Amino acid sequence: MSEQFFAHINKFIPVSHEDFQAIITFFEFQNVFKKQLLLEAGNSCTHNYFVLNGCLHMYFTNEKGVERTVQFAIDNWWMTDGLAYLNQTRTDFTIQAVEDTKLLSITFEKQEQLLKEFPQMERYFRIMYQIGYGASLRKMKHMFDFSKEEIYFHFTEHFPEFAQRVPQYLIASFLGLTPEYVSEIRAKKRS
Amino acid sequence: MSEQFFAHINKFIPVSHEDFQAIITFFEFQNVFKKQLLLEAGNSCTHNYFVLNGCLHMYFTNEKGVERTVQFAIDNWWMTDGLAYLNQTRTDFTIQAVEDTKLLSITFEKQEQLLKEFPQMERYFRIMYQIGYGASLRKMKHMFDFSKEEIYFHFTEHFPEFAQRVPQYLIASFLGLTPEYVSEIRAKKRS
Repeated sequence: MSEQFFAHINKFIPVSHEDFQAIITFFEFQNVFKKQLLLEAGNSCTHNYFVLNGCLHMYFTNEKGVERTVQFAIDNWWMTDGLAYLNQTRTDFTIQAVEDTKLLSITFEKQEQLLKEFPQMERYFRIMYQIGYGASLRKMKHMFDFSKEEIYFHFTEHFPEFAQRVPQYLIASFLGLTPEYVSEIRAKKRS
Repeated sequence: MSEQFFAHINKFIPVSHEDFQAIITFFEFQNVFKKQLLLEAGNSCTHNYFVLNGCLHMYFTNEKGVERTVQFAIDNWWMTDGLAYLNQTRTDFTIQAVEDTKLLSITFEKQEQLLKEFPQMERYFRIMYQIGYGASLRKMKHMFDFSKEEIYFHFTEHFPEFAQRVPQYLIASFLGLTPEYVSEIRAKKRS
């Protein structure tokens, strides 16, 4: 399990096995069950999560009580509310496991300490956030650019691993569609 | 002008005047005119921009020829297509000056060299991207959460400096509204 994280870090920055033995001690290994909550809206955002195996989603609940997913994380992705985590403030978002998930978690304080002791990890996290930021701009483009039908099929074609693992109603929520609409266009495509 | 950038970096990481004298040499100072293009869709994304004074926006043109703004940058903000810049690939976005703008630009190669010589700058850029990423998740929340009318007034109340400087049609584009719709709800509010 920690070998996987070692390999992921080394995709972006060179870290020796020896340094990694120290780096991994800043993290906690966690097993969470399907539907379990890791962060609840209204609470302080204290942790950053790295998914080893499984799937998380981050959502908010609007005034009508409808849940809207703003991001997913599967194997080798990070997840937290970036701004609330950085500023150590309350979050508007909830993070929940979509399926049974194995993950590494780190607190803000521990991450700061890690970055102090291993400043080369700044580069790793800088690249993680740069990818996340770039991807979210691309998502905005798609949400503007495509019709509702196109956005659904674009997503399922380009991210088949999500489409297979994540329940339809969560994909619908992420794309700003209703589950009924997704059933309808899927049925239309099959026919 | 470079004092302003020095102060901005020091808001996030400690950098001595001496180090800054070396850091600033990696950047080029540029004056761009209103409507001037800094990056064009289809081209390679080679530069990262820091706005000293002025305003840039990043947009794409959809199949119908409509321009859609996905982000703005005013004083002390960075702007580039994060993913295309990181991977040094072609971009789908165009970056244009909304008004006459003074900025600092850096190429990908120079930025890599800067980060090698001054690794403490990794932390600075990590925080910049973390803020950008966090803010874009918050924007997605607002776009899901609010009605079209609410999203416009929320934006103009929370970001009055944008509302004053940026033409209405660009704010409309950024929020996924038509300029006609914005005129309509503004007239309604005044009456």
